[in-house]
Amino acid sequence: MSSYSDDENAVKQSVRVDLAVEAHEMVSENVDAIPGIHMDQTQEENWKISRMVVEDEKGARIIGKLPGRYVTIEVPELRKKDPELQEQISLLFAEEIKPFMTVADDARVLIIGLGNWNVTPDAIGPMVAESVFVTRHLFSLMPDLLDDGFRSVSAISPGVLGITGIETSEIVLGIVDRIKPDLVIAIDALAARSLDRVNTTIQIADSGIQPGAGVGNPRKALNRESLGVDVVAIGIPTVLDAATIASDAMELVLSHLDQRVPGTKQGDVIGRMTPEEKRAMVAEVLHPLGHNLMVTPKEIDEFVEDIAHVVALGLNLAIHKGLSIEDAKALTH
Amino acid sequence: MSSYSDDENAVKQSVRVDLAVEAHEMVSENVDAIPGIHMDQTQEENWKISRMVVEDEKGARIIGKLPGRYVTIEVPELRKKDPELQEQISLLFAEEIKPFMTVADDARVLIIGLGNWNVTPDAIGPMVAESVFVTRHLFSLMPDLLDDGFRSVSAISPGVLGITGIETSEIVLGIVDRIKPDLVIAIDALAARSLDRVNTTIQIADSGIQPGAGVGNPRKALNRESLGVDVVAIGIPTVLDAATIASDAMELVLSHLDQRVPGTKQGDVIGRMTPEEKRAMVAEVLHPLGHNLMVTPKEIDEFVEDIAHVVALGLNLAIHKGLSIEDAKALTH
Amino acid sequence: MSSYSDDENAVKQSVRVDLAVEAHEMVSENVDAIPGIHMDQTQEENWKISRMVVEDEKGARIIGKLPGRYVTIEVPELRKKDPELQEQISLLFAEEIKPFMTVADDARVLIIGLGNWNVTPDAIGPMVAESVFVTRHLFSLMPDLLDDGFRSVSAISPGVLGITGIETSEIVLGIVDRIKPDLVIAIDALAARSLDRVNTTIQIADSGIQPGAGVGNPRKALNRESLGVDVVAIGIPTVLDAATIASDAMELVLSHLDQRVPGTKQGDVIGRMTPEEKRAMVAEVLHPLGHNLMVTPKEIDEFVEDIAHVVALGLNLAIHKGLSIEDAKALTH
Amino acid sequence: MSSYSDDENAVKQSVRVDLAVEAHEMVSENVDAIPGIHMDQTQEENWKISRMVVEDEKGARIIGKLPGRYVTIEVPELRKKDPELQEQISLLFAEEIKPFMTVADDARVLIIGLGNWNVTPDAIGPMVAESVFVTRHLFSLMPDLLDDGFRSVSAISPGVLGITGIETSEIVLGIVDRIKPDLVIAIDALAARSLDRVNTTIQIADSGIQPGAGVGNPRKALNRESLGVDVVAIGIPTVLDAATIASDAMELVLSHLDQRVPGTKQGDVIGRMTPEEKRAMVAEVLHPLGHNLMVTPKEIDEFVEDIAHVVALGLNLAIHKGLSIEDAKALTH
Repeated sequence: MSSYSDDENAVKQSVRVDLAVEAHEMVSENVDAIPGIHMDQTQEENWKISRMVVEDEKGARIIGKLPGRYVTIEVPELRKKDPELQEQISLLFAEEIKPFMTVADDARVLIIGLGNWNVTPDAIGPMVAESVFVTRHLFSLMPDLLDDGFRSVSAISPGVLGITGIETSEIVLGIVDRIKPDLVIAIDALAARSLDRVNTTIQIADSGIQPGAGVGNPRKALNRESLGVDVVAIGIPTVLDAATIASDAMELVLSHLDQRVPGTKQGDVIGRMTPEEKRAMVAEVLHPLGHNLMVTPKEIDEFVEDIAHVVALGLNLAIHKGLSIEDAKALTH
Repeated sequence: MSSYSDDENAVKQSVRVDLAVEAHEMVSENVDAIPGIHMDQTQEENWKISRMVVEDEKGARIIGKLPGRYVTIEVPELRKKDPELQEQISLLFAEEIKPFMTVADDARVLIIGLGNWNVTPDAIGPMVAESVFVTRHLFSLMPDLLDDGFRSVSAISPGVLGITGIETSEIVLGIVDRIKPDLVIAIDALAARSLDRVNTTIQIADSGIQPGAGVGNPRKALNRESLGVDVVAIGIPTVLDAATIASDAMELVLSHLDQRVPGTKQGDVIGRMTPEEKRAMVAEVLHPLGHNLMVTPKEIDEFVEDIAHVVALGLNLAIHKGLSIEDAKALTH
Repeated sequence: MSSYSDDENAVKQSVRVDLAVEAHEMVSENVDAIPGIHMDQTQEENWKISRMVVEDEKGARIIGKLPGRYVTIEVPELRKKDPELQEQISLLFAEEIKPFMTVADDARVLIIGLGNWNVTPDAIGPMVAESVFVTRHLFSLMPDLLDDGFRSVSAISPGVLGITGIETSEIVLGIVDRIKPDLVIAIDALAARSLDRVNTTIQIADSGIQPGAGVGNPRKALNRESLGVDVVAIGIPTVLDAATIASDAMELVLSHLDQRVPGTKQGDVIGRMTPEEKRAMVAEVLHPLGHNLMVTPKEIDEFVEDIAHVVALGLNLAIHKGLSIEDAKALTH
Repeated sequence: MSSYSDDENAVKQSVRVDLAVEAHEMVSENVDAIPGIHMDQTQEENWKISRMVVEDEKGARIIGKLPGRYVTIEVPELRKKDPELQEQISLLFAEEIKPFMTVADDARVLIIGLGNWNVTPDAIGPMVAESVFVTRHLFSLMPDLLDDGFRSVSAISPGVLGITGIETSEIVLGIVDRIKPDLVIAIDALAARSLDRVNTTIQIADSGIQPGAGVGNPRKALNRESLGVDVVAIGIPTVLDAATIASDAMELVLSHLDQRVPGTKQGDVIGRMTPEEKRAMVAEVLHPLGHNLMVTPKEIDEFVEDIAHVVALGLNLAIHKGLSIEDAKALTH
């Protein structure tokens, strides 16, 4: 799992926020418009698309996300195992990611599946990397592939520090240096603050990605600056931020007390608890638990398999314009 | 994952408690001695063993665990990847499980790895089943094995309902009917209420086990009554009960408010919140999240691998008295 | 892997033949029509279907296959990773297997994936079992499924003797006794005598199947007699019989010598080598190698994955008449 | 799987020979001493060690192996699942590989598991890479490790061309460029010409390794020249060369005919078949089968698991002199 790059100031926040829509929600509860942030949302029957641009450093500081574009597709029913909806979302995702792929028709794409394949909710990146249609090695045998609307695609899952002993970013940098792709697409698991978004949401961003980010880690981002090519990051929340449970519990106690003793001084006390105080208390609750707890549904294996397929199918469609939906489905394992 | 069988009354409790020591803690905060329950604890430098007997239905009702024996081994440092400690715990576990195996020297043992091998914290049962030394098929080729202190061992992982479409207990009952073992040992993942016990604790019980237990499930227990042979259940907490986080958060808010407004009416209000009220609020917080959330450390893959090895090695030692520790280590994959 | 049941006499043959079409070929080189055998073949552009009936014990003795129906679909291009062809073959296979499924619309089907999931060419049975659409557990939640043209399907992979210590047939018998399906469909890897048939062929038979058959094994068949319900066996050759290589090598030497010394006594010598002598020599060559060698292509992982998908998709279509091809594709993992 | 680098001339041979001892056998049947080759063999009760040096280009041309040192450990009983023997061989292997590791005590070692993890006999490299004790990431947290006799170890399995679309050597070169190890140890599956050596033999060589070598492949070696650091190659034959079966079958026919018609012209004919002719015939037999057939025992999963453990344990002992055999066993998964 990884964190979308926060800037220095944002790190001061007690809680990391992976999803741009959630970072936006946290700030915009209080304000109508956030300076330096442009947000546009489309609600359809089965999905909602949020297109957010963090326009400058000022917006980045306020919202805690690096400057760049963030598209989030939320599909509440995506957990329902509905094959038709899944196919629709693959097509929708393909359309949404295309504008991020500003490369030539003969561009070579490297797909990177971040995360630990031995931990189910963290395995979504490797699962996508295994499921996409890999073509790079076919081009020397079948050079006509290019004319037929196929791009050169390679795919790797670099593993995690605990398995290889090597920072993920080092492995990726080494391979990128060597094979010189024109575009890197990295897929990783995220943590959501709202359970509604776990296993129902796909985020696309152009601001880079930090594999294995965590407290005290010297974090090396994968972005245009470090890799020398565009990096499109696909993030899928597969776990819930443990802070959500703690926070919800606190709010409930407070509102409960409020109802019980209306009009008393106690209500004032609660009213005087600032968001910062609340956040500090959440941090205090979670502190003994360490920062590495994941909250995830028991059926995570099925959700991860389904969404990996949705994303891999969408990538195949977006990358190869010569691929019909029928062929793409057959070629997405 | 499974629940240790609670009796009818206990089910009314809002929160299921898998570990006998935790069920005991919840009740004995208030009372010194619980009628119908005998508890004996031994604290050593590196581990603590709790031997609890639920002596009758009365004790069972109070504590919410079925009558029977429960041995819990807690090893705080078990997550530390210390090979010597792990070996010590395998030996200790072997000694503790032997009294549960009141079968003849030529008894045939069936080991059942419960849980979903596709979900890391739920895979510990299948991992143990794969790691134990299986001998049943060797006896016809090498009948002398028996004289050498080996027992006939078979091992299966029946999968979960979502994979097979069949209740786990049906599969187990069918196989037991067919191969007629003298003893069944079932291994399953549990949920703990205290993070300290996650991936540090092994519970042994003789009161049976209910695979895939959950709200609304028609639960079929695996026990002497249903299988016709002794069932020894080994439970390892690999996840934290989500209620723990919610509950801790509430307590913190309450104590916080208490400090802030000492001596006021508000303090009284809080003081008047009974454990039942608190439990109801925890349930309310978790309700929208469903009952199927797991809270688990990010490094769960390593913990599960380590503990599965500790348990499998201990089982090999306990079952085959002809096996030296050296050979047992080599034969535990 | 398994052997289709040979009768007593056939066992005397030095080499086991899994595919009915190959057993037929071996005999019919010499004769036009085989008594007790009815064979009908259809050649299309991309595939060939052989429908063979072993009508009585006499035919069975001659051909070395038990009485029953055998349908073999050969698709030379199936290794070519052509998505359209694969889908065509799924549909074709669905049509061919339907006449074997003479059960009611509300019949309950148990799918059994035979073989060892840890050995790539032997993993095709378990892969199909994992890929089919399992519905049995959904019927209690959604009883309307039945009206919608869905049957109750459960699926298990019982593993192999070396993993569980239990004969595969014992596990299957136990589960069948318990859940009482109306039809069993068992999938297993076979050995072909011709490389052309490896990973290009699907055999359907109603004469039962013997998991883990081998020399000296007390073989327990899975068939109507043992299970009490119809058993449809699906066999896919994923390995080449090692005898094929030895046999081809011998023929080449002999024809070589023949050309070199035409008209001499030596030619006569070779001419006098009977098929039995040749077979004995093949057995002699392979004897030191044991009977458990597999010959398999290096890319076996991709072939097995592709064919498992073809078979699982075909099964989904054949079992559930309420399933469109589009939905079946989405539901076949 | 890979081929140990042959030089240009050797490639002309019809059959690639992976094991140095087998290349030596093929030549030395005819000659006592081979110019440019030094061979020294030690036979113990349970194993045989061959230490061969290809001293110059002349020797390399004759024997078809690149100049360098080759140590081969043959252990006929290694397939017997004898834990004590396996441990002995780990220790023996550790002693034999140490002279190849002419690096400082604080040298950083990169272990590379070559081969396809989805194909059982080809998965031995990745299995070793997963089983060794990885320490590189621990050094920043625990710098004292070094003083305690531990080296920095990282480990990766780069996959195969069909999975990633990238030549294995490109991935390895990229990572080596980036993390700059002092020593590379690469593990790969080999093909043996004698069944006796399959799953019983470990070869250590300092002449480099060519992942995925095959006919028509532009082969990029991993060696000191390409990587800039010493490369120790560990090869384990897990498959049998299909040519062996063909060749044995031919020899048998020929000797058979010889016995039958002694003293005739035919005998002369056979006597006149040169090794080259025989080799050409073997090639002719195998040609229609393609060059990518593997012959492997059915129980390959157990053999590969066992030998991967032997090698990983030996590597842990050879690399970290601070590691006791007991700790090494516990740390080798």
